[in-house]
Amino acid sequence: MQMLELIRRKRDGGALTDRELYDVVRGVVGGEVPDYQIAALLMAIFFRGLEERELSTLVDAMLHSGEVVDLSDMTLPLVDKHSTGGVGDKISLALAPAVAACGVAVPMISGRALGHTGGTLDKLESIPGFKTDLDPARFRQVLRECGLVLAGQSAELVPADRRLYALRDVTGTVESIPLIAASIMSKKLAEGIHGLVFDVKVGAGAFMKTQEQAQKLARTLLGIGRGAGKRVVAVLSDMEQPIGRAVGNLCEVMEAVDVLRGAGPPDTRALTLELGADMLVVAGVAGDRAEGAARIERAIASGDALERFRRVVRAQGGRDELLDAPVRFAPERAHLQAQKDGYVAAIDAHAIGMAAAAAGAGRARKEDPVDPLAALLLHRKVGEPVAHGDRLCTLYASRPVDLRLDGAYTIADAPPPARPLILERMT
Amino acid sequence: MQMLELIRRKRDGGALTDRELYDVVRGVVGGEVPDYQIAALLMAIFFRGLEERELSTLVDAMLHSGEVVDLSDMTLPLVDKHSTGGVGDKISLALAPAVAACGVAVPMISGRALGHTGGTLDKLESIPGFKTDLDPARFRQVLRECGLVLAGQSAELVPADRRLYALRDVTGTVESIPLIAASIMSKKLAEGIHGLVFDVKVGAGAFMKTQEQAQKLARTLLGIGRGAGKRVVAVLSDMEQPIGRAVGNLCEVMEAVDVLRGAGPPDTRALTLELGADMLVVAGVAGDRAEGAARIERAIASGDALERFRRVVRAQGGRDELLDAPVRFAPERAHLQAQKDGYVAAIDAHAIGMAAAAAGAGRARKEDPVDPLAALLLHRKVGEPVAHGDRLCTLYASRPVDLRLDGAYTIADAPPPARPLILERMT
Repeated sequence: MQMLELIRRKRDGGALTDRELYDVVRGVVGGEVPDYQIAALLMAIFFRGLEERELSTLVDAMLHSGEVVDLSDMTLPLVDKHSTGGVGDKISLALAPAVAACGVAVPMISGRALGHTGGTLDKLESIPGFKTDLDPARFRQVLRECGLVLAGQSAELVPADRRLYALRDVTGTVESIPLIAASIMSKKLAEGIHGLVFDVKVGAGAFMKTQEQAQKLARTLLGIGRGAGKRVVAVLSDMEQPIGRAVGNLCEVMEAVDVLRGAGPPDTRALTLELGADMLVVAGVAGDRAEGAARIERAIASGDALERFRRVVRAQGGRDELLDAPVRFAPERAHLQAQKDGYVAAIDAHAIGMAAAAAGAGRARKEDPVDPLAALLLHRKVGEPVAHGDRLCTLYASRPVDLRLDGAYTIADAPPPARPLILERMT
Repeated sequence: MQMLELIRRKRDGGALTDRELYDVVRGVVGGEVPDYQIAALLMAIFFRGLEERELSTLVDAMLHSGEVVDLSDMTLPLVDKHSTGGVGDKISLALAPAVAACGVAVPMISGRALGHTGGTLDKLESIPGFKTDLDPARFRQVLRECGLVLAGQSAELVPADRRLYALRDVTGTVESIPLIAASIMSKKLAEGIHGLVFDVKVGAGAFMKTQEQAQKLARTLLGIGRGAGKRVVAVLSDMEQPIGRAVGNLCEVMEAVDVLRGAGPPDTRALTLELGADMLVVAGVAGDRAEGAARIERAIASGDALERFRRVVRAQGGRDELLDAPVRFAPERAHLQAQKDGYVAAIDAHAIGMAAAAAGAGRARKEDPVDPLAALLLHRKVGEPVAHGDRLCTLYASRPVDLRLDGAYTIADAPPPARPLILERMT
């Protein structure tokens, strides 16, 4: 393979052949292609994009760069959900057990917090004892016993993505829709699933700032999924304000548990039902979304969904008695009060995410630890009335932090126009 | 400096500040910026370009990344010529001594053969004993004694360009006009000259294939030169066919000596006069181009120009008696004959350059040695009549080579329309 020739061809708007893409991915994993040539190719792809054929080949090459989870002996349908990342997004924690309680197996491989967004693995690890690094045998065993498994990416899964992602992160090539889609899909397809629901977040707190960008990403993800023979659906959901009232690690687990108890904030409950309905339809166990939503509601009302969550927590080594204890926080360090009477017109999800991360709930660099008890609680959400002096949000951190929350909330005299939680559904 | 932030800004079409560009160049030279980030930035510049201000700052930062030749104690005007590279381009070898004979000092720093183009240093080193690596003191001494010096780039001169060029070469970012211009100008301005004449080659045998590309490069070079307070002029010259009849190393030196004796092929003589006239005008020693050309012609007719060349050959350790001996070649290995009567309509300069390089006159990789006696002689040039069976060109190589020259010549029934040697002159 003449890597230089491939870089130049992509740079000039040409396409790489299947053979060349497999060779590139092999060279990326084997280390024969130097970082600087990968970086140049990634930047050329940023500008020129990838044709549909190139993208599906790249995903296939990445997917087969390592181990693929073999779940062919599972009898239940296998479905997962992927969220593009938001602030306060604890939906997976309630959704996976609720869907599993409806007879669909959920082999969920999640990531960690980075930047202003949290990570499902970090949230799960705030449950004492909970292990997310499972070997393949244990992964399959938990899935079989509980109907779901909540794990991190093993070192053997999609090694090509690890090297490519690490380079994209330091070369300004993260924000490329085909590269984002290839990274997501190579990992999801390596899970051995039959169907997949995408939650593509849109707004100030999301990576996709506009609905148009989100549609483009959703179309790309759906195209790859369909091309790989999977049943797929994408939901574009609002990420102007954080999801729910809790942003952090343990506090988000507890908010998800609230949803599994039939309570929790309305948006968090609603999103769980919406995505759960889609997962059941994709799995073929519900005929339509209304039936799917009704089944998820019954699984919650009956306690089956919460019981599934307890079961997976125990199976992965976590102390499930924590789920019955009151939520704990680090010491209070800052809060924000309303400066006038009115209504919450906006909450800056990006600012909230950055504040929670700075308080210890997230991390600036991959090596940093996270604090399970750091949290940012939102006492008011968009549309709610406030009186002068009302507390709007509170920040909790284990170490003293110098953080100003001013500007995170916008208070207006009149209630803002209602904004839908689900902007669009694409298939 | 946050290199990632600079890559992203350039990627999105923004500009880097002076401070940032100096920091980047310092990081490139000091090794603090990793190759993959430089590669990503170079590819972003390939797509987004550089604003005029960014380019002049980049050139200044590169120029001051190492030693700058101090010629402030020279009394003569200091002028150089830069050619963007062609096949059979031995013009410097005749031009520099002719201009020096007219009272203009020429501190010429040249490069080596790469790809299909030859290199002035390799040609000079085909003269036994000729040394091109001179320390700064010797460089100044030769220039003072001979009025010219023909040297290679010292390790101390523009180290930023060495690292950047090496990376561009392997990341598909060579063909960027601002990066080409920055590379050329940082080295030329480090020579301590007052004026500079550009010979921008256009055509199949050149890096710039179209007159439009060549104009763009010339405008960029002129802009940087003027911005640095230099007197500059650019000539766009034809590179559809090779210059002169000799392509190789020693054979090109001997063809330049022919020009200095008042003979040589018409195009080689004409280009020497054209560029010489411009150099004398830029130096301020001729009032206009006609006067400049007349002075160059007199310097050749009087033998002063050839005497200057002898002097510099001796000063740099070369055996000047070679200049009076008949030209020598490696053994003949291949030749091409006309398949019909007619006229030479075209000679593929790129194919000729590649064949000569493959015969040993050039190199595929920087580490390869070159053969002083490998050569490709053109017995016919464009527009000349040929009879069936006439020899068109002959290839000489020290080792057996398997090269087909078919296709290098196009023979037509009628003479082709005359094509000017100088396409355009820009200031």
